[in-house]
Order: sequence, then C-alpha cells, then structure tokens
Amino acid sequence: MTVADNIRVGVLGSRGKVGQAIVAGVEAAPDTDFTVGVDKDDSLSAFVDSDTAVVVDFTHPDVVMGNLEFLVANGIHAVVGTTGFTAERIAQVREWVAAKPGVGVLIAPNFAIGAILSMHFAQQAARFFTSAEVIELHHPAKADAPSGTAGRTAELIAAARAEAGLAPMPDATSTGLDGARGALVGDVHVHSVRLAGLVAHQEVLFGTQGETLTIRHDSMDRTSFVPGVLLGVREIGGHPGLTVGLDQFMNL
Amino acid sequence: MTVADNIRVGVLGSRGKVGQAIVAGVEAAPDTDFTVGVDKDDSLSAFVDSDTAVVVDFTHPDVVMGNLEFLVANGIHAVVGTTGFTAERIAQVREWVAAKPGVGVLIAPNFAIGAILSMHFAQQAARFFTSAEVIELHHPAKADAPSGTAGRTAELIAAARAEAGLAPMPDATSTGLDGARGALVGDVHVHSVRLAGLVAHQEVLFGTQGETLTIRHDSMDRTSFVPGVLLGVREIGGHPGLTVGLDQFMNL
Amino acid sequence: MTVADNIRVGVLGSRGKVGQAIVAGVEAAPDTDFTVGVDKDDSLSAFVDSDTAVVVDFTHPDVVMGNLEFLVANGIHAVVGTTGFTAERIAQVREWVAAKPGVGVLIAPNFAIGAILSMHFAQQAARFFTSAEVIELHHPAKADAPSGTAGRTAELIAAARAEAGLAPMPDATSTGLDGARGALVGDVHVHSVRLAGLVAHQEVLFGTQGETLTIRHDSMDRTSFVPGVLLGVREIGGHPGLTVGLDQFMNL
Amino acid sequence: MTVADNIRVGVLGSRGKVGQAIVAGVEAAPDTDFTVGVDKDDSLSAFVDSDTAVVVDFTHPDVVMGNLEFLVANGIHAVVGTTGFTAERIAQVREWVAAKPGVGVLIAPNFAIGAILSMHFAQQAARFFTSAEVIELHHPAKADAPSGTAGRTAELIAAARAEAGLAPMPDATSTGLDGARGALVGDVHVHSVRLAGLVAHQEVLFGTQGETLTIRHDSMDRTSFVPGVLLGVREIGGHPGLTVGLDQFMNL
Repeated sequence: MTVADNIRVGVLGSRGKVGQAIVAGVEAAPDTDFTVGVDKDDSLSAFVDSDTAVVVDFTHPDVVMGNLEFLVANGIHAVVGTTGFTAERIAQVREWVAAKPGVGVLIAPNFAIGAILSMHFAQQAARFFTSAEVIELHHPAKADAPSGTAGRTAELIAAARAEAGLAPMPDATSTGLDGARGALVGDVHVHSVRLAGLVAHQEVLFGTQGETLTIRHDSMDRTSFVPGVLLGVREIGGHPGLTVGLDQFMNL
Repeated sequence: MTVADNIRVGVLGSRGKVGQAIVAGVEAAPDTDFTVGVDKDDSLSAFVDSDTAVVVDFTHPDVVMGNLEFLVANGIHAVVGTTGFTAERIAQVREWVAAKPGVGVLIAPNFAIGAILSMHFAQQAARFFTSAEVIELHHPAKADAPSGTAGRTAELIAAARAEAGLAPMPDATSTGLDGARGALVGDVHVHSVRLAGLVAHQEVLFGTQGETLTIRHDSMDRTSFVPGVLLGVREIGGHPGLTVGLDQFMNL
Repeated sequence: MTVADNIRVGVLGSRGKVGQAIVAGVEAAPDTDFTVGVDKDDSLSAFVDSDTAVVVDFTHPDVVMGNLEFLVANGIHAVVGTTGFTAERIAQVREWVAAKPGVGVLIAPNFAIGAILSMHFAQQAARFFTSAEVIELHHPAKADAPSGTAGRTAELIAAARAEAGLAPMPDATSTGLDGARGALVGDVHVHSVRLAGLVAHQEVLFGTQGETLTIRHDSMDRTSFVPGVLLGVREIGGHPGLTVGLDQFMNL
Repeated sequence: MTVADNIRVGVLGSRGKVGQAIVAGVEAAPDTDFTVGVDKDDSLSAFVDSDTAVVVDFTHPDVVMGNLEFLVANGIHAVVGTTGFTAERIAQVREWVAAKPGVGVLIAPNFAIGAILSMHFAQQAARFFTSAEVIELHHPAKADAPSGTAGRTAELIAAARAEAGLAPMPDATSTGLDGARGALVGDVHVHSVRLAGLVAHQEVLFGTQGETLTIRHDSMDRTSFVPGVLLGVREIGGHPGLTVGLDQFMNL
C-alpha cells in the first residue's frame, strides 16, 4: 500500500537473500513504501526516476563506494550495511556528504538492535559488579571463537572496569583442566559454545554479593537485522551528514 | 583495618539481621571503616563521639525521623533504606538538610543494584521492540503476585511504549485457559512463578523480528542490598542535600 | 550417495514444505537413501517400483488411510506424522498390519525429540520436588494458550505428583492481579508468553529446599522434526506391527 | 510434633552447620521425628536408649567407621553423607550388614536430588543429539575447574555417545583465542564460570537440527542436600543391606 507521507525506500541487491528480507520489511512496515530494487546490471538512475528518498545498501565492498557517490550526488539518503569501510573510505564518504548539505549516510557494522543494546547495557553495568563473564553460543559451522561480538563486548566491559578502577575479579581456581575457564579478553573470561540447533546467542553475566544480572541476546534467524534497517531508514532523513553506528540513532 | 582516608561509617540497628550484614560489608570493604553500632536504648551521640561521617539506617518508620533529625543536625550524612517515606516526611527531611548545607541524605526503596539496572535497561530497551513481557519468580512464602518490582518494571515499559507511539503488541490468542497469559499491567503481560528453592528472580523479555533480548536479575540471598549500601556510602559525601533513589548516584 | 546397506526411503507429499525438509534430511543422513517422492496425482506404485523400504507420510487426514492401506499391503514400512488418528483409525491400521506380519507402522503426534524427552524427564522428576510450574513461550501468531505440549506436560506432572501422594504445593499468594499466577492444569501452574521473535520454547521448573531443576526445550525452526523422523525410519524395520508414539523407540 | 508411625531419626554431628540443617529438616517433615543428636564426646548409646530407627551421619572419615559398626550391630539403619569411602571401607561395611540381616546402610557422595536427576537425564538424552556441552557456574572461591559434578556429567555423556556410536560433534572452529572452546572431557566441551553472587549451578546443553534441550540445576544454598537425606531416611528401612548412591532409591 502506498501512503502519501510514507518514506520512499529503494533497495540495492534486492534479489539476494538479504535484499529480499529488506524489501519484505519495507513493504510490511506501515510507514515505508518500497520503490524499486537495483541489482547487478541495473541502472542506479532507477532510484532517481522513482523519486526514492532512502536507499538501503547491503551489497559488496567492490561496488558500495560507487553506489554511495551516485546516491549522495543525487540527494538520496543511504543506509549501509556493506562491510569493508576503512578510514580512507569513511573520509571519502564524509567529503561527499559535506559537499551535499542535507543528505544523510548511515554506515553500521551491526543492525541487530538486541546486540547493540546488549553491548550498551554491558558497558553501563560493568562498573557496578565484582565479576563479569561472557558466554556466546552459536551453530557449529562458525569458524571463529569467540565471536566478534563477544570479543567486542568483553573489551567494552574490561575498559569500563579499568576506568572505574575496580579491583581484579576474585577467582580462586588453582587446579583444573586447560581451557575450562575460557579465553581472556582483557580481564574478562569469554566462553564459546558450539551446538547443533543453535543460531546466534550471547549471555553477559555480572555478579556481586548475593545477586547476579544477566543480559541475554538471542538471534533466532537471519532476518534479525530488518528492524534495525527500518530504524535507520526512519532516522536518516533527520540526521544529515555521515553517521557511523546505528547506536547513534538510538538516544541511549 | 582502619585506614586514614577511609570513610567512617556507623550503623543503626546493627544487631539485627540486616544491620549485621551491613556491618560485615563495611568491615570487608577496603575503603570504609566501621565506627559504632547504635541499637534500641543506645544513644545516638555515639556517632558524634566516634567521629562518624556516614550512618546507615535500615530501621523502622517509627524511629527513622528522629534518627535523621539528629544526624543532619550533627552534620552526619545518612544512607536510609527504612520504608514509610510519605511526601510529608520527604518534605520534612528536605527542610532539615536545607538548613544544614553540605550534609547529604539518601533515601532509597531499593538497594539491589541488579534490580535498579534491570528496571533502567528495561525502560531504555522498551521502545525498540514489538513485544515485552515480564516473568518474576519467587519463593512460595511471598504474599503478593506480581511482585512490586515486576509491577513497577511493567509500568515503566508500558510508559516507554506509549511515549514512543508503538503499535499494540501482536497476540493471536483466541482459545485457552484463564490466566495462562498472565496479568496485565498497562499493556504488558506479567507472570508470577512461586517455587520452593527460589529466592527472588525476574526476567524481562523483549522481542522483535528474528531476535529477543532478555534481562534477568537473580537475588540469591538476603544480603544483596550490601553493595548498593556501600555505593550510597561512597557517594553521599559528594551529594549534599536530599537524594531519593540510588539510581541518582549511578550516572545511568 | 547411494550405499548398498542404506535404508531406502520414499516420501509422501515430498514437494510441500515439510516434505522437502524430510527429503533433505534423508539425503543428508549417511545411512538413508531417498528413492522417490509421491505427491498429489502421482501413483503410489512408484514406491514399489523403486524398491522403497520405508515411506514417510506427513500428508493429510483425507488421504493418509489410503496411503497406509497400500503401503502395508505392499510390505512397505510407514513412519506417519499426519494427524487425525481416531481410535477407529488406529484399530483399522492395527488390523492391516496384523494381516501382514513383519511390516511396521509408526504413528506419532510429535517427532521433536527434545519435546518428547522434556515430557519424559518432567514425569520422572515430578515426584521428587515440592513445587513444579511450566512456562511456555511462543511466537505471537499462536492461537491457543497454553500450548498443547505445555498442557500435556502439566497433566503428566500432576499425575506423577498424585501417584506419589505429594502434599499440595506451598503458595502463600494472598493479594495480586488476576492471572498473575497463570492457568491451573491439575495442581500445576502454567504460564504462556507470546513474543515477537520467538519460535517455540518451554521451561519446566521444579523446586525443593535450596535447589531447582529446569528442563528447557527450544525449537528454533520448523525442521526440528527431522531427526525424530530419521530415528523412526531407522527403528521401524525392527518393530513390526503398529507403534503409537516415537518414545516407544527411545528405550527411555 | 511426635506422631505414632513416624520414622524416629537421630543425627550424628547435630551441632555442626550441616547437622543443624538435617535436624531442622527432620523436625519439619510430617513423617519423621527427631530423637537425639550425638556430637563429639556424647555416647552412641543415646540412639539405642531413644529407640531411634535411622541415624544420619555427615561427620568425618576418622569417626564414621566406628559409628557404622555400632549402628549396624544395634540394628539401627544409617544414611551416610560422610566422605572417604574406599573400596576397603565399603567391603567392611558390607560384611557388617551381611551379619545383621534387615539392617540397611546408604552411603552416597551426593544428596542433591537435582544434581542426581541432571546427571541421569543427561545420560539418557545424550544418544539422541548431535552435540552436547556442559557449562558449570560457581562462586569464585571454588578451587577446581571444572567442578567434579561437571566432569562426571561430561564423562557420562561421552560414554553414552560412544556406546551409541554417534559421529563426532560438528565444530568448524578454525581461528580464535586459547581456551574459548573450554576444556575437553572425552569429546564433551566443558566451560567453568566463576562469578561473585553465584552459589552452584550447572547447564547441560544438547542440540540437534532445529532444536536444543537444556537441563539446568541451581543450588541456591547449602541446605539443598536435606530433601535427599529425607528421601534416604524414608527408603532405607525397605532396603536392607548396603546401598551406594541415592539414585538407587529413586527408581529412575
């Protein structure tokens, strides 16, 4: 259904798995309309012709810079989940948007709102607790252990603990088996479970005298980035210039 | 061990169960020293004689106002977990501290840091999720269901959802048994489990497309208020005047 | 890959969503080979022509009886997840297999191994605990609350408690909100959570002095019946006659 | 309250922490009566004089054998949680009870019913799942990692997997940090969390296509052995001779 004041949204790579999920999300939301999908061999001018306001780009490092140059030049906002943004690329995008006031570009490595909130809450909670550990649990086809998110979460906790000047965590372990206590990231123990049937899950555990606080994030399927993309689409018009990280739009 | 720059802390009701736990906490912390305990029939002047800087009061509504009048008048900070603070009482304490610049009084209904953080995080997360429910789990001797904390948490979530203009939560339930979907607080379903072996636990569940976020708080024993009391003791000297709620000292 | 001693498996309704998952499972398992799929308008004789040993039937109550009559008559084992088996239908199938010694038919309402084990363990554990409650958590498109599995689990627990002559569960709840304590199935409280992002999950909680035991089952996607179907396929050749319920093949 | 047909129970070491909890449990149960406590320097004949039927012994390896010789000789059943039972000691006790038909002795290393059930269920479930891992979580004063119970649970799972001829667990981990994947007991990964605020907790996770099963045991305080002791007290009269392990009385 097309509604007058809805945000007009185009999608790059709309026929891929990720693109299809984004198109479906845009079509299902009450305040966004899908205009056009542009895939390999299609012309970017379709976005201009369709009066598209925001384009979502989850494509490939090889093509994303060309896409962004075109979109910004044509006054179209962009919400970007494509990877490979080096400092040089970021600087280049910043230059483009500076030359085109009013246009917004969001580049974010992670659109899963639950993961972003988990990390934010972990960072806030860390300084109040004696102990902190991270358990991440994934499907057994995952190559790295711990996960990037778990490693990053542990770094944030370790930094918050250091800044607050907390004492070292108590740990009387004196005998045992190698690896039982997990990997260390800063002073935070991180444990990686690999289990058939799981998708992507993480628990951050905090403890102090007589109580614990656990922040758990469960990704049940591969479309969990869609609500975050829609959040970016809704906010980008009000945030001209370059923004890095979806958390910037979340007023946390 | 007495250290020169440690905070000198006295305890009202030091021989009761709660008081004993506070004394033990003050003695165990590296930056606080226990000065003196004052119980029924003891004189409050012991706090003055012992050069006490902060007094902790977990006593009774019948005596707490007399205690506070004395402490403020004598330039001693107070950290108060006693209940029964009506608007009138709050106003009276505010008057006393206004007359004695530099003295701080903290009055808080809840010193469990994990519970305070749970509520804060729930409030922050609520506007990003399609659905939210609360499950609280307690020992079977508890008289009220849901717990006060669960009810308050659900109210905060409902208010945050309303403020963000979220759509009603999806729920296709059309057949079933009375009570299966729990109690409603605002638009938030709340479930109360009563189980032998449990102490006091709460889960706040948030869900959106493909992912969930769970914030769980477990109180394992009755001393879980001690770290919060110590936090209050450390901060009160830097917060003259009346403060209501420990979260005010947590920079959240 | 076709291996000499592998079990030769055909699939009814092979082009439907469920059928496709079963075909994929049969093809992926090292000890089973997929022979042929038979869908609407195809002839059942394809199973005979392909020398199929076991046929899996997840079709429709309207056609399953015709399928079974043909399969048993032709000496082909059947593993059946189709619903609608009344006592009359069961009796009819029993008659067919009695006339054809050596042929096995398994009819089961539930092929999720984790759900079957959850119920079995709950039944075993119930008599050792003072308290028991059930929490089931599902996607918000579910029509019934509590779920059929949760209701059945609670019935099994209530029956085990009654048989063991346990005292009533302690519960001091005297004030509160309607529904907070959930629905009652026998003497077991059952709570139903409906949350976007969830699939199908259940927790059975048991408690006694100082300890709790929790049995949690998570179905993450709609293919969780496949391992149970493969278990049925492997066992049916060694279990001639009619078997009702996959647990009969699990030696619990 | 003393009731005619109640079991008359005496307690060795009744003034210690553990003994006090046992006395309180015996007094609170509706079907047992506490007769007498015998501590250091008291005479064992108090059990005979008080017509005690069952004595509970949670004392010390140095004295337990003398206690048992006396109890068996006097026709009194014994429920024993004291440690240090070597094969020689077991053989000696077996000799004593053989000479005194009708008298029962239970010796058990673990009286936490939830822990016993967890291990039993883990053993039963193991052969049905592609993957299994164990997470144990304890207070930070614990010296060994993993816990003895976690190690034993992993051994039981590994043995059940081997007996069922399961394929190796899938695990694509190729890069990461040392220890992230935990310790290996047989082919089962075991993870140890040490966190302030925790007591003693364990999760056994099983996974297969699309589903997981989790068995979680939480010991919230040090009295969680009491229900198991009472179970032993109730059953010992009907089980003459020597029994090793409380699970023998649980008909699992």
